[in-house]
Amino acid sequence: MANVFGNILKLSIFGESHSDAIGVVIDGLPAGLPVDMEAVQKEMERRAPGRNSFSTPRKEGDVPHIVSGLFNDKTTGTPLCAIIQNTNTRSKDYTPELLRPSHADFTALCRYHGFADFRGGGHFSGRLTAPLVFAGALAKSYLAMQGIEVFAHIKSIGTNRDLSFDAVNPDVETYRKLKAETLPVLDKDIAPKMAETIESARTNQDSVGGVIEALVTGLPAGLGSPFFESVESRLAAMLFSVPAVKGVEFGTGFAISELLGSQANDSFCFENGTVKTKTNHNGGINGGITNGMPLCFSVAIKPTPSISRPQSTVNVETGEEVTMEIHGRHDPCIVQRAVCVIEAVTAIVMADLLLEAKTYAKPSEK
Amino acid sequence: MANVFGNILKLSIFGESHSDAIGVVIDGLPAGLPVDMEAVQKEMERRAPGRNSFSTPRKEGDVPHIVSGLFNDKTTGTPLCAIIQNTNTRSKDYTPELLRPSHADFTALCRYHGFADFRGGGHFSGRLTAPLVFAGALAKSYLAMQGIEVFAHIKSIGTNRDLSFDAVNPDVETYRKLKAETLPVLDKDIAPKMAETIESARTNQDSVGGVIEALVTGLPAGLGSPFFESVESRLAAMLFSVPAVKGVEFGTGFAISELLGSQANDSFCFENGTVKTKTNHNGGINGGITNGMPLCFSVAIKPTPSISRPQSTVNVETGEEVTMEIHGRHDPCIVQRAVCVIEAVTAIVMADLLLEAKTYAKPSEK
Amino acid sequence: MANVFGNILKLSIFGESHSDAIGVVIDGLPAGLPVDMEAVQKEMERRAPGRNSFSTPRKEGDVPHIVSGLFNDKTTGTPLCAIIQNTNTRSKDYTPELLRPSHADFTALCRYHGFADFRGGGHFSGRLTAPLVFAGALAKSYLAMQGIEVFAHIKSIGTNRDLSFDAVNPDVETYRKLKAETLPVLDKDIAPKMAETIESARTNQDSVGGVIEALVTGLPAGLGSPFFESVESRLAAMLFSVPAVKGVEFGTGFAISELLGSQANDSFCFENGTVKTKTNHNGGINGGITNGMPLCFSVAIKPTPSISRPQSTVNVETGEEVTMEIHGRHDPCIVQRAVCVIEAVTAIVMADLLLEAKTYAKPSEK
Amino acid sequence: MANVFGNILKLSIFGESHSDAIGVVIDGLPAGLPVDMEAVQKEMERRAPGRNSFSTPRKEGDVPHIVSGLFNDKTTGTPLCAIIQNTNTRSKDYTPELLRPSHADFTALCRYHGFADFRGGGHFSGRLTAPLVFAGALAKSYLAMQGIEVFAHIKSIGTNRDLSFDAVNPDVETYRKLKAETLPVLDKDIAPKMAETIESARTNQDSVGGVIEALVTGLPAGLGSPFFESVESRLAAMLFSVPAVKGVEFGTGFAISELLGSQANDSFCFENGTVKTKTNHNGGINGGITNGMPLCFSVAIKPTPSISRPQSTVNVETGEEVTMEIHGRHDPCIVQRAVCVIEAVTAIVMADLLLEAKTYAKPSEK
Repeated sequence: MANVFGNILKLSIFGESHSDAIGVVIDGLPAGLPVDMEAVQKEMERRAPGRNSFSTPRKEGDVPHIVSGLFNDKTTGTPLCAIIQNTNTRSKDYTPELLRPSHADFTALCRYHGFADFRGGGHFSGRLTAPLVFAGALAKSYLAMQGIEVFAHIKSIGTNRDLSFDAVNPDVETYRKLKAETLPVLDKDIAPKMAETIESARTNQDSVGGVIEALVTGLPAGLGSPFFESVESRLAAMLFSVPAVKGVEFGTGFAISELLGSQANDSFCFENGTVKTKTNHNGGINGGITNGMPLCFSVAIKPTPSISRPQSTVNVETGEEVTMEIHGRHDPCIVQRAVCVIEAVTAIVMADLLLEAKTYAKPSEK
Repeated sequence: MANVFGNILKLSIFGESHSDAIGVVIDGLPAGLPVDMEAVQKEMERRAPGRNSFSTPRKEGDVPHIVSGLFNDKTTGTPLCAIIQNTNTRSKDYTPELLRPSHADFTALCRYHGFADFRGGGHFSGRLTAPLVFAGALAKSYLAMQGIEVFAHIKSIGTNRDLSFDAVNPDVETYRKLKAETLPVLDKDIAPKMAETIESARTNQDSVGGVIEALVTGLPAGLGSPFFESVESRLAAMLFSVPAVKGVEFGTGFAISELLGSQANDSFCFENGTVKTKTNHNGGINGGITNGMPLCFSVAIKPTPSISRPQSTVNVETGEEVTMEIHGRHDPCIVQRAVCVIEAVTAIVMADLLLEAKTYAKPSEK
Repeated sequence: MANVFGNILKLSIFGESHSDAIGVVIDGLPAGLPVDMEAVQKEMERRAPGRNSFSTPRKEGDVPHIVSGLFNDKTTGTPLCAIIQNTNTRSKDYTPELLRPSHADFTALCRYHGFADFRGGGHFSGRLTAPLVFAGALAKSYLAMQGIEVFAHIKSIGTNRDLSFDAVNPDVETYRKLKAETLPVLDKDIAPKMAETIESARTNQDSVGGVIEALVTGLPAGLGSPFFESVESRLAAMLFSVPAVKGVEFGTGFAISELLGSQANDSFCFENGTVKTKTNHNGGINGGITNGMPLCFSVAIKPTPSISRPQSTVNVETGEEVTMEIHGRHDPCIVQRAVCVIEAVTAIVMADLLLEAKTYAKPSEK
Repeated sequence: MANVFGNILKLSIFGESHSDAIGVVIDGLPAGLPVDMEAVQKEMERRAPGRNSFSTPRKEGDVPHIVSGLFNDKTTGTPLCAIIQNTNTRSKDYTPELLRPSHADFTALCRYHGFADFRGGGHFSGRLTAPLVFAGALAKSYLAMQGIEVFAHIKSIGTNRDLSFDAVNPDVETYRKLKAETLPVLDKDIAPKMAETIESARTNQDSVGGVIEALVTGLPAGLGSPFFESVESRLAAMLFSVPAVKGVEFGTGFAISELLGSQANDSFCFENGTVKTKTNHNGGINGGITNGMPLCFSVAIKPTPSISRPQSTVNVETGEEVTMEIHGRHDPCIVQRAVCVIEAVTAIVMADLLLEAKTYAKPSEK
């Protein structure tokens, strides 16, 4: 229940921070999809920690090993399982009785009655996003064959705001270059300020959050369904699966609530015989279904809950209120690492929607 | 696919604005749940149009008729089907070839290849929220038996902002009274301003949107699951099923991205021997699982896309760009009518989560 | 959970024998499918009681009324709901405390804690197969557009055995004529003997069962999946949903267990350039996937449990063992009425498989 | 889709005969379930090949390695993944262009468009039942805690028929001893005849099939649901997932079709205040729901399709009809190895049903 996602392209993720391995089973991949492990590894490294000064110095070595579903470097169409070993797990004293604020320590205790593996956050660890990035890499290659691309950038860190994607006439050439950057932003002047904000948080034993904006280009009109299977519903369910995401908004999002209808409505026009909209306040979705415009949305990422300054909390064994300090290697900001995770889960949902769309495609197009 | 929701409590909704009827099949309801049709009808009327000057003067007569699953005024445990007749459908000339901006006309055309019932918006009509309100009324009565209540109010209309719910020590007495109000707000001074904003939009043949905030009290800690079945994922999928919702945020939401970790973290404390948090920036959810604090979130509602002032659009038959005027009875603001819809879908998800939680409850508590 | 079936073509059935109505919501139907209500009604009448001397004299008037999902006599692609009113429900004294042997009275009591509608068997009534026949009629018209036909006949009633379908070179012309017959059999000499067996059971206040054989022609090779979604798994799950079915076997079925491998293996050959098998012991399925040969299977139908001769049972209120007599109008044999139900559910599963197969079709064929 | 099973206890299996590994992800296991790896390994060995003269001499070394979801020898409640390495894969020349009769070679070709891993049968290999046996071992330990046991024996091999389980007053002491036997039968005189039949088939380069009967004791009344989620539907879907199963029948099964209603009906009586039936023709299920009597069913297993005598088939590359000989190590009979597989999948379905039943349990019992 908890760990299976998708209608056609189905994902099962598994693993804990300190178990032997983490991984994913992907079912429903089209047979014959080429898997370029170099491209996959590149995506893995975008997420991996220790890439730069903003991230924790751990080297997790996120190398996915495909144990099934691949033959002659192509997907077989049967379930593909990838395993990522947990090699760099520090053995240390854990104090599960001390609840780390804004972590899942307490809820895990309630949900799993004390049997969950608490070491390193266990199954709740951000490390579980590595299998998602792996699955996303495969999904991206499926999308690429259809001319569909997923982009994401840091829209803000703290109060430092980047420019927004152009969701009407996206500059894909520029957006492609973002993937290689440590702090992928559109306004080059804002990157150093963001870096400073992160460094300042680190110095103060504190952390910062931010907002990530994503864009999908090349999508056909007519994907998705009204109500429970709306594109927004499908994507939001997946985006809120990513740890630390606390908000999701499509198109103009919350700000649309301050517009008048005459301002917010996206007028239709023709462009080379194709129906387009002149603006894109709806983020490429009407009635839960893609309208052929770029899909655009933002997600809010909360500040890393692991901070080393003293925090007040409780000891569930002694029943006392205490002060705790969280030691260890922690990212003062995970926004920049989450960018490729947001891209990955978006690609997964898009691939699932595209496969599903074959079931309701126009018969002649089938 | 599109129209079935839920893991244990399953909903299938059906109907078009001008079909004979709309309705819902609810499967998985506990057997023996008393159904108080008067209470149900009260909820239906909160959503129904024509209640006041802010709403369209139509009288839809949303009277659900239960055709199965009820025996001696109690649920049988087998699927309960409720039908709501479409009685007040004006016959008029429709021009489906003219795409109404920000409506689903174009996406429906792409998705259903021209076969969808376009009259009155067809299956995409806001009328389909009536069966959701009906299902929500049953869900609420199930929640009430366990001391769980769902509240919602208008947080803003246009730029008129109400106060926020207290998500640490909620004043439930006050919140209960909101259900009877036309414009349910906490700050009584803001209601007249909101009314003015709506009236002004109507006068200008325009429309306005807003934000709705919801709160759930009495939830046990330990509901939900990490990742794909997080409470945020489940709720967001349902909330984005409600037409016009363009954003969902939990707790402090997007604003949390501007806080430092030391500000955003919710410290644990004991209150009468129970673990609580001193603040509630996480909206009652950690790691996708309820933590026993009130669940709190907001949704952005876009301005009603139906406005009567001239709009530029296209005629898909002639291939021309044209100006269209949307006639008929339309709400200049649907935020106030959406309040009980947001409550309803929240109650449905909560009931589903509670039923599902029995499968992972502590054996002794089972 | 209990009442939703299908991966792409999803069915929700609802209703009780004496509720206002029974019905079905069908989601995932392709948009634009013509619905010929005359053809639908013909199927409904094949199932309806009172058609001949073998059936109960009740006239249920199974007229499905489509309330949504239909526009201009074609499916819209959105959920189609059909309602069948329960008009001919005799009001009489029920004695739910007396458990009718081999009925669901006791299990319903345990499952629904005494809240189920027990009148006329409630939700467990064979009447619930009427919505299945309705859905099957739509599925059949979808299959027909692709040259796929579903046939079924009575293979046996009691010990009277009919011939078997030819599952290698089926005589479809002959098989089509079976649909119009009261006792559809291949061996015309066996029909009078079956009739005699049924009449004898009626005279003796007893009942008889039988076996139904089904055949599907025109299926492409490559439908279905290994393991949990094998064609056998999908079909069997649906066939065992039909009340009174106690066995399902594919191809040679249980008798294959007495053959040697050299006898049971279906050798491959070419016929007009297409791969065929010379025999069809596997019923058209290898590894859970259709092989292009006719799909063939049999289902065992138990004798009608409602018999009017005295039976020993218990009174759950008094805790006594008692003798009961079941009065009312009952079929001494339901096999002949079940033939079209088996056809219907088979058509539903085939349609679902075909829609799903689009998701894994060869890209060029898509 | 294809490889995920279950409502609450969800299984994803993966792997090919010659991929690096095969395995399973199990989600929804209760937290805190002790895992006794010795007991697990014992089950694995019941299935493993090479145990005796009836089986192939391969030593597959089916040692499951749990990589997640286990902590301090107990389940954590999060997904448990077990990997079984493929160590003993002979490298040899494969001729995928020659279709082995009654194997999945042709259907795999159609389904996966030539991309499937054909080595050793690939994903269709009987080896994939090893992860099912592993999952079944965990399910059995969950059942055992509730006093529920699953038994199975060989009911027939070829025409050699064993006695049947007593499904009214089962002799569990005797049945428990069956698990240690090579040819588990109730009639000790039949085992040597079965052995002879198998040996004779081997000598003749042929194979034989058989029937397996299973019994589940200790089940509460009230498990399952009518129609699509009937216990028969759930179990049959799983049983037909096991390669080589061609028939499933509950209780008296196909033979019930030859009984009169007065013979087939299971009369109710009281035994120590509990409702029982005097006979058990319905196999412990009425209306799709368990009635508290032992659950009883049989499955037909076809003769191993791999036989070494020459068989006629086609070469899909040259388009010629040819004669082929299948070399290698093959079981002349797999019935005895399938016994524990049938037990395992039965245990999995029972565990899933029990977990699900908590959602509809009587409130006071919760």
